[in-house]
Amino acid sequence: MPYKPIMSLAEVNDFLDQNFPQIHIGGRSYHVEEIAPAMAVIRLEARDQHLRPGGTVSGPSMFALADLSAYVAILAHIGPVALAVTTNLNINFLRKPQQGSLFGNCRILKLGKRLAVTEVAITSGEEDNPVAHATATYSIPPHENQNTVL
Amino acid sequence: MPYKPIMSLAEVNDFLDQNFPQIHIGGRSYHVEEIAPAMAVIRLEARDQHLRPGGTVSGPSMFALADLSAYVAILAHIGPVALAVTTNLNINFLRKPQQGSLFGNCRILKLGKRLAVTEVAITSGEEDNPVAHATATYSIPPHENQNTVL
Amino acid sequence: MPYKPIMSLAEVNDFLDQNFPQIHIGGRSYHVEEIAPAMAVIRLEARDQHLRPGGTVSGPSMFALADLSAYVAILAHIGPVALAVTTNLNINFLRKPQQGSLFGNCRILKLGKRLAVTEVAITSGEEDNPVAHATATYSIPPHENQNTVL
Amino acid sequence: MPYKPIMSLAEVNDFLDQNFPQIHIGGRSYHVEEIAPAMAVIRLEARDQHLRPGGTVSGPSMFALADLSAYVAILAHIGPVALAVTTNLNINFLRKPQQGSLFGNCRILKLGKRLAVTEVAITSGEEDNPVAHATATYSIPPHENQNTVL
Repeated sequence: MPYKPIMSLAEVNDFLDQNFPQIHIGGRSYHVEEIAPAMAVIRLEARDQHLRPGGTVSGPSMFALADLSAYVAILAHIGPVALAVTTNLNINFLRKPQQGSLFGNCRILKLGKRLAVTEVAITSGEEDNPVAHATATYSIPPHENQNTVL
Repeated sequence: MPYKPIMSLAEVNDFLDQNFPQIHIGGRSYHVEEIAPAMAVIRLEARDQHLRPGGTVSGPSMFALADLSAYVAILAHIGPVALAVTTNLNINFLRKPQQGSLFGNCRILKLGKRLAVTEVAITSGEEDNPVAHATATYSIPPHENQNTVL
Repeated sequence: MPYKPIMSLAEVNDFLDQNFPQIHIGGRSYHVEEIAPAMAVIRLEARDQHLRPGGTVSGPSMFALADLSAYVAILAHIGPVALAVTTNLNINFLRKPQQGSLFGNCRILKLGKRLAVTEVAITSGEEDNPVAHATATYSIPPHENQNTVL
Repeated sequence: MPYKPIMSLAEVNDFLDQNFPQIHIGGRSYHVEEIAPAMAVIRLEARDQHLRPGGTVSGPSMFALADLSAYVAILAHIGPVALAVTTNLNINFLRKPQQGSLFGNCRILKLGKRLAVTEVAITSGEEDNPVAHATATYSIPPHENQNTVL
């Protein structure tokens, strides 16, 4: 029984703009590309503040992309609840990203009553192999999604 | 460019029997079910020593299944090198497993020159949602696989 | 403001004997050595079932020791509540253990209302440097400890 | 046998200024406070770009502090080698930080030939309990430290 989102792409984007304006400081960098059952995809249009010398995206920027991808996937499935907080994030850095956009491809592994666990593959350009892979756990407040499975 | 295995299912099973007889103490519990590009699947036929009261598989047994699944996937892709060792394993426990067999479904995220990084979804019965999810890193010796991608 | 245990060493040992007899299958291997504020120490007297060929303690046995050390530390601080369950365990394997006993030295990093987070250094013989290091998160039920700090 | 640093506080600060000028964009935020055997302490003077609404330091900023603390501890112990790269970072967020400086207190758990493993406790103000705790693994190049222990 898969999880189903209860917010649309537009609703998620609106919610982020209103509640997290700081992620757009220095110009719009993060774009929610897709919301689907148990999934979300975020694109990072890297700007100067995300780059290391040489032009590759920095570790903290990949962490931020993974964290935001997980947040958005959970948000879309539990409804507009601003208070979900990250409790654990484990990230493996696998390859140097290519220049250009990065994508955070998040899948919800569990959407429980108190915890949501996700995995995020970060991909770069047309390369199939991820440049980084993360698992993230969020503590979540009571929520509206009726199709939550323990 | 996907990774390709260089050992067959039968070769992997033979190698385990000769090099890790202790995993079969108390009766044959672990069965390599599938070897495929960048993948391996191991089945755990749980015995008394793997169970908690109530009949669910214990945490350490799921850890052992994840660790073995990663080892077998890497072994099949680098050839019969006994010395790969786990350096890191991160596991999230998601749901109580059902009674019956557990499957460790391993995917290789990176097969480098010195490190291999994998993820393992542990599934139970016919349930799609994993009961546990792990990422495991192995330190690996110089190996034969020519199609290793950095 | 440190956390204070509310169970004694003897009470913890009794609780384990009654609720987890299976950890003593094959002979008494795990011994609670110390309970102190925000801490617990468990000794693993390794038996055949814990060893790899060559006589070193296996990865799953070190995982089990880390997991039990965290469980005991939390138990001693929240009282006899059997239902705490591991949600995440991250372990780094650092060195080959020496022959002989291993110690799981657990420190509670956070004892919250719903989650407890711990770290465990596994040490071997007289060596100061740990042979493995883990962080473990438990989901905990409502509990009695009044000095819990968020 | 503890690890001994082979660079001084001043040498580490000089190296960072020359090789990582980007960490000082927007004003000097990171200060190396201490280098000691198997240790380093970094202070983060949080600026606007590190804060969430409400004034608490963001998750990605705590990740960056943990990552830099580990990098600096390793750098001080292996000498001026710019190429160490993070392979894994696992972080648990424990409490909301207070306003004011954060400290990344790094301890080296293992300094091997190819991998270095560290733990970092992030503390805030005068509170003893950490606000976050991380373990970080770096892949390291051949290095000069003669007192490396496997």
